[in-house]
Amino acid sequence: MYRKRFTGMNCSIARALDEVGEWWSLLIVRECTQGMTRFDEFQSELGIARNVLTDRLQRLTDLGILERFPLETRVNTDGYRLTEKGEQLYPVLVALMQWGDRWLAPNGEAPTALVEDATGKAIEPLQVRASGGRPLSFHDIRFARGPGASATTDAVIEKRNRKVLEPR
Amino acid sequence: MYRKRFTGMNCSIARALDEVGEWWSLLIVRECTQGMTRFDEFQSELGIARNVLTDRLQRLTDLGILERFPLETRVNTDGYRLTEKGEQLYPVLVALMQWGDRWLAPNGEAPTALVEDATGKAIEPLQVRASGGRPLSFHDIRFARGPGASATTDAVIEKRNRKVLEPR
Repeated sequence: MYRKRFTGMNCSIARALDEVGEWWSLLIVRECTQGMTRFDEFQSELGIARNVLTDRLQRLTDLGILERFPLETRVNTDGYRLTEKGEQLYPVLVALMQWGDRWLAPNGEAPTALVEDATGKAIEPLQVRASGGRPLSFHDIRFARGPGASATTDAVIEKRNRKVLEPR
Repeated sequence: MYRKRFTGMNCSIARALDEVGEWWSLLIVRECTQGMTRFDEFQSELGIARNVLTDRLQRLTDLGILERFPLETRVNTDGYRLTEKGEQLYPVLVALMQWGDRWLAPNGEAPTALVEDATGKAIEPLQVRASGGRPLSFHDIRFARGPGASATTDAVIEKRNRKVLEPR
């Protein structure tokens, strides 16, 4: 369901949104990170219609974000769990949660906090960092060609980086 | 457009998705991080229909993610730029891009890379970290009450943490 022509620049964010930009998908992934595995758990935790949930679970499975596995506790019933691809969405979830906590919580007070299980201490805010660990803002970052760059990509990168370097 | 009842647990991720889960919104934010400011720039870079773009820019402005400002180069014309709230979406963009680069790039080869402008070195993959900087996976993290927790939140947290602690 790509809705636009893609330049080389657009690909990864747009493709990611194409797989998980839909409202329910990341909420289902979040449930999985919380130990939920069963259809009825997703259903009751999310308050999602059964037919919509069926559809989303199938799609996430087709995309290789979830996988089915036989539940030990229920004969002939599969549960769902994250694949490695699905687990690696965790930074996306944390980034959304921390942004929501900061900007959208009622009265500015987040209902929950993510803490390290072993220590009970709040985790750090996600930070974009340079090789070596220094914090960076988007003003410090530019695009460069990746291994899959095409001639089109090169042209787009050159145009964009010229743009960013202009005075504001 | 909340589509479900919310438990205290759901709020921040679901609220964030409610503001920026829609496909175009984060792509517009990405354009802004790349120095785009003008309606016609967004339009040509994204290949988005003008009426849809008008609608999305208005919504992002209403949400306080973008703000209008008078363009120096064009009389009587406003451009759009990120507010602080909008700028803080950058980790969400980077998380999506890195995930897309890793899992969705054609032939596994990302067309572009994000590099530190000053050094030309690739930035680090985003990493969820404990207070103090140790890398954590979602298995190491649990929910705790935040400043805005209600009695409902407490019940949900207790239920969830019990769930996570069960053997898999």
